[in-house]
Amino acid sequence: MAGKVLDTITAEEARRVIDAAARKAEEIGQPMDIAVVDAGGNLKAHVRMDGAHIGSISISINKAYTAIAFQGETAGLQELTRPDGPIYGLSDAHGGRLVVFPGGIPLVRDGSIMGAIGVSTGTIEEDQQVAEAGVAAY
Amino acid sequence: MAGKVLDTITAEEARRVIDAAARKAEEIGQPMDIAVVDAGGNLKAHVRMDGAHIGSISISINKAYTAIAFQGETAGLQELTRPDGPIYGLSDAHGGRLVVFPGGIPLVRDGSIMGAIGVSTGTIEEDQQVAEAGVAAY
Amino acid sequence: MAGKVLDTITAEEARRVIDAAARKAEEIGQPMDIAVVDAGGNLKAHVRMDGAHIGSISISINKAYTAIAFQGETAGLQELTRPDGPIYGLSDAHGGRLVVFPGGIPLVRDGSIMGAIGVSTGTIEEDQQVAEAGVAAY
Amino acid sequence: MAGKVLDTITAEEARRVIDAAARKAEEIGQPMDIAVVDAGGNLKAHVRMDGAHIGSISISINKAYTAIAFQGETAGLQELTRPDGPIYGLSDAHGGRLVVFPGGIPLVRDGSIMGAIGVSTGTIEEDQQVAEAGVAAY
Repeated sequence: MAGKVLDTITAEEARRVIDAAARKAEEIGQPMDIAVVDAGGNLKAHVRMDGAHIGSISISINKAYTAIAFQGETAGLQELTRPDGPIYGLSDAHGGRLVVFPGGIPLVRDGSIMGAIGVSTGTIEEDQQVAEAGVAAY
Repeated sequence: MAGKVLDTITAEEARRVIDAAARKAEEIGQPMDIAVVDAGGNLKAHVRMDGAHIGSISISINKAYTAIAFQGETAGLQELTRPDGPIYGLSDAHGGRLVVFPGGIPLVRDGSIMGAIGVSTGTIEEDQQVAEAGVAAY
Repeated sequence: MAGKVLDTITAEEARRVIDAAARKAEEIGQPMDIAVVDAGGNLKAHVRMDGAHIGSISISINKAYTAIAFQGETAGLQELTRPDGPIYGLSDAHGGRLVVFPGGIPLVRDGSIMGAIGVSTGTIEEDQQVAEAGVAAY
Repeated sequence: MAGKVLDTITAEEARRVIDAAARKAEEIGQPMDIAVVDAGGNLKAHVRMDGAHIGSISISINKAYTAIAFQGETAGLQELTRPDGPIYGLSDAHGGRLVVFPGGIPLVRDGSIMGAIGVSTGTIEEDQQVAEAGVAAY
């Protein structure tokens, strides 16, 4: 082994973020897929709560990836990518890994993006709310 | 929504399995990617322990998937798929989702496969050992 | 914008690594594809020297990715993944992104992997030699 | 080897184009992913400037590819592919490799397309401006 890859977010931190998000999801009565990726966009942890969507496994992971990929919330891409927006078509332009609606948020420390959370299964308002609860625990 | 997808393995069970596997990984001093999928082969939970391989994210998930896909341990595919084996080429035959070496094991209850665990980053002996520790906690 | 993603290797460092590798490639008279990825396995820079293979674009990028993914030289995977090796089939198990022969080497600083170089088009001995020349310039 | 693939754009030219684009990017204070492909649409060189988006690696390469693929600027596809346009759906029609907004421009010599540049991370106006600076240096 040549060396060690830097862990930008620890497994313990990822669990704390996911647990806080899951508590919010239970509170609002909407099971969710919740994913956390590191600063390189690689999966650090994921959980599919009981009753959450199978189709949201990828969506949650890709929301977190997208928040890393464009250094911001996926919610910020929604208006820009609508049919009359300046980057309409973005979601098609990267092999199916980008999500352009709410639920993906960077995890920031001292001004640097250390990872991101992605939440999916509920409405976009619920997804965003649950993602924010996760962010608040980081 | 037409109905609810049956949860064959609960998030709580998946966590118990992953935590038991992670304890074994810590005990042997080898950080691991650990994944649990449900009876449909879909990801239920994943964690990448600090220091575990990024390349093993997919390998751990695909080991668990393969254990569901062929209803048995991935270790059982190893000799069958070698160049002189009867199903040589299997690992190529499914779009890059099959793993044909140890570390993927079904989670069985009352004779039914309810899910599977996949473990990756260590040697195959370590991966198998850690996966077995996860199975024992189910 | 929520924050800034950490750059583990700078564009200037990546260029220095690539330029040193390219000089070695010229010296031995074998044009090469040369790629550098960051600690997350994401492409930082790439050049296809005149006469290098189109097919080696992906191979060079994937060699660098593999060196990150498994925290070591791709050369180290060669014996392990041969038909009679313990992880035969690895190269099929990750959707076509892994390279299990020489030419991919981590870029290490203070014991941490900050990125990786991947080189392809020549023989594996040439690829490895050119990659090592890149590493020496980091 | 049967023969040698013609290099339509040289590595030296690609670097000159990228360097000119990068200077413009620095001038406007917006780090960019910048890619150059050859007349076959295959990657010749890429750089991700420090602070540029990881998500824009693919977008920049795909912008350059798209400029080759349809022999024109990607900007020209934007109105044609909107929901009320004649080729609405184009961005879906090629496996996630097409970009239908500004930032991709062919590199033309003596009336022949020799390659293309793709730029991404900024606004589409910035991407286009930086791509044009690259074209001007060809």
